[in-house]
Amino acid sequence: MTEKNDNPVFARFVTEMRVRPDDIDLYSHVHSSRYLDYILAARFDQMERCYKMSMQEFAAMGLGWFQRALTINYKRPLEIAEKFTVETGIERFLKDGVIVSFKIFKENGKLSADGEGNYALIDMKTRRATAIPEEILKKYSI
Amino acid sequence: MTEKNDNPVFARFVTEMRVRPDDIDLYSHVHSSRYLDYILAARFDQMERCYKMSMQEFAAMGLGWFQRALTINYKRPLEIAEKFTVETGIERFLKDGVIVSFKIFKENGKLSADGEGNYALIDMKTRRATAIPEEILKKYSI
Amino acid sequence: MTEKNDNPVFARFVTEMRVRPDDIDLYSHVHSSRYLDYILAARFDQMERCYKMSMQEFAAMGLGWFQRALTINYKRPLEIAEKFTVETGIERFLKDGVIVSFKIFKENGKLSADGEGNYALIDMKTRRATAIPEEILKKYSI
Amino acid sequence: MTEKNDNPVFARFVTEMRVRPDDIDLYSHVHSSRYLDYILAARFDQMERCYKMSMQEFAAMGLGWFQRALTINYKRPLEIAEKFTVETGIERFLKDGVIVSFKIFKENGKLSADGEGNYALIDMKTRRATAIPEEILKKYSI
Repeated sequence: MTEKNDNPVFARFVTEMRVRPDDIDLYSHVHSSRYLDYILAARFDQMERCYKMSMQEFAAMGLGWFQRALTINYKRPLEIAEKFTVETGIERFLKDGVIVSFKIFKENGKLSADGEGNYALIDMKTRRATAIPEEILKKYSI
Repeated sequence: MTEKNDNPVFARFVTEMRVRPDDIDLYSHVHSSRYLDYILAARFDQMERCYKMSMQEFAAMGLGWFQRALTINYKRPLEIAEKFTVETGIERFLKDGVIVSFKIFKENGKLSADGEGNYALIDMKTRRATAIPEEILKKYSI
Repeated sequence: MTEKNDNPVFARFVTEMRVRPDDIDLYSHVHSSRYLDYILAARFDQMERCYKMSMQEFAAMGLGWFQRALTINYKRPLEIAEKFTVETGIERFLKDGVIVSFKIFKENGKLSADGEGNYALIDMKTRRATAIPEEILKKYSI
Repeated sequence: MTEKNDNPVFARFVTEMRVRPDDIDLYSHVHSSRYLDYILAARFDQMERCYKMSMQEFAAMGLGWFQRALTINYKRPLEIAEKFTVETGIERFLKDGVIVSFKIFKENGKLSADGEGNYALIDMKTRRATAIPEEILKKYSI
């Protein structure tokens, strides 16, 4: 994965966010589960802003994205009210989904977490994975 | 409100729950926002178990419950992994909703929080408040 | 409260935020509990940025803020990925805390929710409410 | 991992839980991030109930558990108010932590999610990983 990231095939995008009070856990760090929502929030933002196709546009086409699997490595915890960035990009296309890798960076620029997720494109009527339409493939292949 | 609770008109029900790790905040207490989800979780449980009409049955009738207002008083914080109970009951009916009072008790039996919420019955097609059907009024008037 | 807000004694500040995916509930609205975290996040931001005294500085002085009570009125729901603003300001000082009123505005400028909270200043050693030091009173009286 | 699970070296334990309203996402499923908190909640419960050493006892020894990495596969979504079980067990010991595998089962007994996490034992003074004390190793080797 790192080799690919050093010389990525597809564009990588960055979203700025900030830790909210309820994200904090008993160790005064961000709770491990919240990183998953940060990644999704970044994808929602980037789908609209960078790929020019928002979640609402997918929904209007009767499509949705379900998470199939995720691997995350926690390197350095995010802290109270910290500003951070989430970088994501497509690693490769599956017939019916995408592999997205992500890196979360702390305010000081150091790596907080990285990993990758497998997302299925869902036909919301059947609630089953469906082939990615050509039109979407084009928008995403940047 | 306390006078009414000492001699309530409508039945009061109790749900047992437990604090989850992500509920904890920077003070190692349950975060103030989580109490609102505990109250809703108790209502969902009690609607099904006590009033014999689950959220899913409301949904099947094209109805939903939206929260219109809430007042909560925090007395003693809930702590890591603490077991607690949520007691709720209807205070009075509105034309298009209900006033529900609640008390959250710590594992040691002491009061953690109390207050009351105003919930509107919603016609999910129009997304507007609607009069409570006679059938539901009967189920709820216990 | 509205009279005071029309002509407030103390300064009011605004924080911009955005709905995260996990904030959404079964009605595709922001879950009622999340508004409480938005208000706290706005206060954290404004304490640092506007009052020039961050939560970390309070902590360094052995002080914390506990929520004693909150009343919230929900007017119009926040939606998926919506950008919104949280305006807060001090309504009045208590001997050992503050009454803060808030207004949450939707992206279209309409009111989403309003209400007020009662926050106690806590001596973290005793975990009891304490009188507000003159120095903090001055910083907050803007 | 599956081979080991069919014939595990270490004991596996089960915790019963229930989906809360705020766990639900825009697809009326449990949000992908919440499964991580369910796993932790199950571990907290099992540490106390099964291994006879609660999180609070670890804290009293100046120790904590930080999550180093996690892989999760989502098979079938958990739904509104669903009752489910979380089975966890130690796969193997590291010098300074443990690999824990988990399976989440739906109310109907079908697999909802599985995977494994890597947890470091932390000396809370230095906030660095530390060798597992013999006494804890013994309690965990059941």
